[in-house]
Amino acid sequence: MTLPTIRTVGMIGTGVIGASWTALFLAKGLKVIVTDPAPGADSKLRDYLLKYWPTIPNAEVTQDEYLNNYRFVKEIDTHLGDIDLIQENGPERLDFKRRLFAHLDANTPEHVVIASSSSGIPSSEFITECKKNPALEVVPHQGTGDVYVTAALQFYLRLVKDPVLVKKETPGFIANRLQAAVCAEAYSLVSRGVISAEDLDKTVTSGLGLRWALTGPIMTNTLGGGGDFNHFMDHLGPALKAWLDDMHRHEFDVDSRDVDVLKERVDEWTSQVNLKEVEKSRDKLLVSLIKSKTEGSA
Amino acid sequence: MTLPTIRTVGMIGTGVIGASWTALFLAKGLKVIVTDPAPGADSKLRDYLLKYWPTIPNAEVTQDEYLNNYRFVKEIDTHLGDIDLIQENGPERLDFKRRLFAHLDANTPEHVVIASSSSGIPSSEFITECKKNPALEVVPHQGTGDVYVTAALQFYLRLVKDPVLVKKETPGFIANRLQAAVCAEAYSLVSRGVISAEDLDKTVTSGLGLRWALTGPIMTNTLGGGGDFNHFMDHLGPALKAWLDDMHRHEFDVDSRDVDVLKERVDEWTSQVNLKEVEKSRDKLLVSLIKSKTEGSA
Repeated sequence: MTLPTIRTVGMIGTGVIGASWTALFLAKGLKVIVTDPAPGADSKLRDYLLKYWPTIPNAEVTQDEYLNNYRFVKEIDTHLGDIDLIQENGPERLDFKRRLFAHLDANTPEHVVIASSSSGIPSSEFITECKKNPALEVVPHQGTGDVYVTAALQFYLRLVKDPVLVKKETPGFIANRLQAAVCAEAYSLVSRGVISAEDLDKTVTSGLGLRWALTGPIMTNTLGGGGDFNHFMDHLGPALKAWLDDMHRHEFDVDSRDVDVLKERVDEWTSQVNLKEVEKSRDKLLVSLIKSKTEGSA
Repeated sequence: MTLPTIRTVGMIGTGVIGASWTALFLAKGLKVIVTDPAPGADSKLRDYLLKYWPTIPNAEVTQDEYLNNYRFVKEIDTHLGDIDLIQENGPERLDFKRRLFAHLDANTPEHVVIASSSSGIPSSEFITECKKNPALEVVPHQGTGDVYVTAALQFYLRLVKDPVLVKKETPGFIANRLQAAVCAEAYSLVSRGVISAEDLDKTVTSGLGLRWALTGPIMTNTLGGGGDFNHFMDHLGPALKAWLDDMHRHEFDVDSRDVDVLKERVDEWTSQVNLKEVEKSRDKLLVSLIKSKTEGSA
């Protein structure tokens, strides 16, 4: 079975994530049928779409088409026959998602891909939303047929640069876990007074982060081993083990009083920083960084 | 006591790290007295300096000055009186370093800063050298006077953008530990078949890495919490704990057979990649990324 090309998307929920998806889908020329039971959701979505139009890279339609290719409906059920993919962005509550998925499953044709925007967490705050270049992890559950996985990957490939396939469900998925690993060690070092919060961040932005923006940890290791990951592992394994052992001895405990020490030390720095300016400058640089990466790899 | 301005540097050892330092010091207008007992070290250094001259950003001297402001000497002892700072880049062997430091300590005037380029590891491979923007961690030992720490920080600030101060010695220092944290989780996910090596890297280069190139983990969290790290921690703490607990249950063991599985999975990807091209493109993008960051923050 090959699934039909996805042309019309059903969007359930238009919070930050649902609204971002809607903007992206519309900019890529898809039709979107949107629903959200929250009062005023319709006009909030329109405001969002208007606001973000100038920041969308590589839109494939005019602003008019972008704004006219969606329909906000009270009830999506009567439209399920017209939809090729459903992007669900409801609240992160198990009972809600269970009921919704059972309902969708019973009421959509077989070819419809049902995708959940679950972030694995009760909010989208951990991974700050990066509208310019959303990172996307496709996580099929055990019963998902390959044909749906392929269709989903192909579909998202049109929309974002690098969708990745998570082959086994795992708490937090991938990006959250990698971020948690760095953060836990960062929190330990700062709360133990080994380094200031500001200098901890500098270590990343002036070194590791620059590299990881261009090659991930595994390719970075491979290049570090002169093009040979095996050589790298054989050579660095013992040092790595020694550091990891020491890191375990000083593990940061999210439930301990160390959190208060950490908060204080972070505040010493961030209270003296113009955060709005930092954010503005970061967003600007992010766009130019993604642009130069796209050009560099073309 | 205020230390005199550092104008002349003594360079001991001219392997990759020592040669990089020499190039950087010379490009910034310092005089360098160099020594290395290895056969042919003198001409190797000259080749290195010639090769890297075109890639040095913001050189403050002409190429002629750059090439004429150093002297390669057989024996540094007779020059110790002319030197303001010694940058030691000898082999990472405790016995060697101990003897060298005792000797330098006994034979240099009090104002001389003695700095070791120890990377905390038996090679410089883990942190791939990044000549365009070396990350620098200043790690005083317990007995180092504040005046030397300040002098060192001020000196390196002229040379690299973001020297950081490590306040307590800790195995691996900072960057190595943060990198080890990410790598350990990455190795676990890939060896367990949760995600392919290629997709693991994509997760970083298309998301986390882009952000960490611009704001470090703590500022990223702070901005993610709407400008409030406390809010971020209170809100995300429980999810973070759940992920970290699961990560501990699946900890990667550097000494186990998992390493072989990992190597195989990495090889499946990297054997099909033109690594020379990847490295070339990475180096090129790195320069432009650092340039746009410098301009963006100016």
